[in-house]
Amino acid sequence: MAKTPLKLIESGEQAVVINAQDKFVCTAMINPHTLIAGRVISRREGNFLSEKLLKKRLLLARSLRDRLYDKPFYRMVYGDSDAFPGLVIDRFDDSYIVQISTSGMEQFKGVIVDCLHNSLGAERVIIKNDGKMREVEGLDSGVELSGPSIERLRVVENGTTMHCDPLGGQKTGWFYDHRENRQWARKLAKGKRVLDLYSYVGGWGVQMLDAGASEVTFVDASESAIEMARENAESVGGADVPARFMQGDARAVLHQLLEANEKFDMVIVDPPALIPRRKDVPPGERAYQKINELALRLVDASSADGGVLVSASCSMHLPAERLQLLCNQAARKNDRLLRQLFAGTQGADHPVLPSVPETRYLDCFGFQVLQPY
Amino acid sequence: MAKTPLKLIESGEQAVVINAQDKFVCTAMINPHTLIAGRVISRREGNFLSEKLLKKRLLLARSLRDRLYDKPFYRMVYGDSDAFPGLVIDRFDDSYIVQISTSGMEQFKGVIVDCLHNSLGAERVIIKNDGKMREVEGLDSGVELSGPSIERLRVVENGTTMHCDPLGGQKTGWFYDHRENRQWARKLAKGKRVLDLYSYVGGWGVQMLDAGASEVTFVDASESAIEMARENAESVGGADVPARFMQGDARAVLHQLLEANEKFDMVIVDPPALIPRRKDVPPGERAYQKINELALRLVDASSADGGVLVSASCSMHLPAERLQLLCNQAARKNDRLLRQLFAGTQGADHPVLPSVPETRYLDCFGFQVLQPY
Repeated sequence: MAKTPLKLIESGEQAVVINAQDKFVCTAMINPHTLIAGRVISRREGNFLSEKLLKKRLLLARSLRDRLYDKPFYRMVYGDSDAFPGLVIDRFDDSYIVQISTSGMEQFKGVIVDCLHNSLGAERVIIKNDGKMREVEGLDSGVELSGPSIERLRVVENGTTMHCDPLGGQKTGWFYDHRENRQWARKLAKGKRVLDLYSYVGGWGVQMLDAGASEVTFVDASESAIEMARENAESVGGADVPARFMQGDARAVLHQLLEANEKFDMVIVDPPALIPRRKDVPPGERAYQKINELALRLVDASSADGGVLVSASCSMHLPAERLQLLCNQAARKNDRLLRQLFAGTQGADHPVLPSVPETRYLDCFGFQVLQPY
Repeated sequence: MAKTPLKLIESGEQAVVINAQDKFVCTAMINPHTLIAGRVISRREGNFLSEKLLKKRLLLARSLRDRLYDKPFYRMVYGDSDAFPGLVIDRFDDSYIVQISTSGMEQFKGVIVDCLHNSLGAERVIIKNDGKMREVEGLDSGVELSGPSIERLRVVENGTTMHCDPLGGQKTGWFYDHRENRQWARKLAKGKRVLDLYSYVGGWGVQMLDAGASEVTFVDASESAIEMARENAESVGGADVPARFMQGDARAVLHQLLEANEKFDMVIVDPPALIPRRKDVPPGERAYQKINELALRLVDASSADGGVLVSASCSMHLPAERLQLLCNQAARKNDRLLRQLFAGTQGADHPVLPSVPETRYLDCFGFQVLQPY
């Protein structure tokens, strides 16, 4: 480590990575200040990120999504998996939301915006540079708009039209990664009372309403998210949509619902990453177990068919088997039997590089919750 | 172990399992001759499998599937996961194929057949008792028919109508477990040249044709399976369906295709369990790596979009991460880059009990195969 030349390289520079035998490994974008100090640009010698390569890769990223999805709503660029370290782009029809998290990619900001307008026909590009990683990289925070301003972005997912707030919302405004998991949950929603925890703007719950749920309760800590969930629910089910909106901390609301002896046929637990860093594993796992246990106790398992618990984690440091185990432990403790009907992960617009485990982070289980028989 | 009372219990008897503190654990069906000597019937005291309980559980098993699938084609009973140790029932509309693998369940054979006819409205029940496990349990092999005889069973999966042979075919005649994985692969089939290895009667390949594949090559060792695949392909695409049928050992055919310099846009590798028992792990893993490597070399990765490798394993002893790793190693060795677009498992009609890991056995990856960029 004493010999590392990293300190001589400026943050964001591109470099050639060679091995101990002086053999070419890859070209990479360098950040000397982070643990992952180099991120692959290309495995071809002499291939650096340029305006030309960037344009080619953007078109390629879009072409994959257009094969996979029949509507222009998806994550179009998913960082390293699309050979764009530090870049995320979500597409909402003719609007593109861009997030840049490395100083190397920041240098291409203008090129990216131009390319989206001129080569991909974007009407509007919003640069939403407020991610936590930017600070680590020494980058400013801020939001920039290129094109006509807009308050609400329309998003169509699994046939349901909803809206999100690109500026005030979380990250890009929408979480496309659960699309396929929500699609699965829709199959079980008909006629069911649903509790949507950490609902955000209603991605899960509104789709359950659209799929025939008899009632959905949305819970989120953010007032603006809950307001948007209400708008979305009403646009699907009208002014008298069978929906209830509870603003508050999920755990506090769960206790409140338990005290009121409420029961639901389906409870959806899709929290933010409770294990942000590796060192947060022990408390984070306890948090997952606690929230799932409280949720489980609200599932109505009295009928022969039981109820459903949808439990998700977007913590890269929580393996799928651990989440499954935590849920199962919570079930046994509460005299419930879990049957796993579904195990999903992030959608195909968030591809995983098998050699870069950091690219895989999402898990979603669908459990049938039964009384021991 | 010296104190085990197991040898005193007759194979197939039901017993009460207590712990070291004489506390009730469960009721179970016992087989003193197998490693898993007791399989749970119920966690309620005094609850043994009876005609009444059996009927209740059959109706419950069907009710779950009817919520999940809009057509009456599914695995209706999946052994321990449906609290029916040693019983599998696949439904093909009004025909039910039954497989019994334990002497405990064998005693209920007549009751099961009666119940399927009288409570579930089965027109036809075929008892296909030719599984390998029966020998271990000291049970006879044979096929019994209750109801009018039939040569071909119709099956509708993901909207495609196909047929299988309940008597001459493998297991129950059809593999419903890949339904959701095939549904995913259909999205990428349009206009593509597909190679379907271990095609059996064409479950994958015929659906790819129906989804718009420009050509499908079916490979299977069984002549009768290949003939049925041809029938299925022709019923979807007519007499001049763009399909080719190659009877032979998959590895031999792969070598033949490689020598002929053939290329495919999508190659599907869905072999039988190459790791039947735990002790087969080392040779089995080598077999998975070899077959996936040969398959990978046939994928046309020359276009910017690359090609697709669908790789599955039904070996319970091969963890998903191992299959992913073996495929990735094969890719690196052949100067290819894999991007994982999809990771699926067995469908919801094959539920998993988190406390019984043996109930989970299927993995299916969808990889984009690219030239290193």
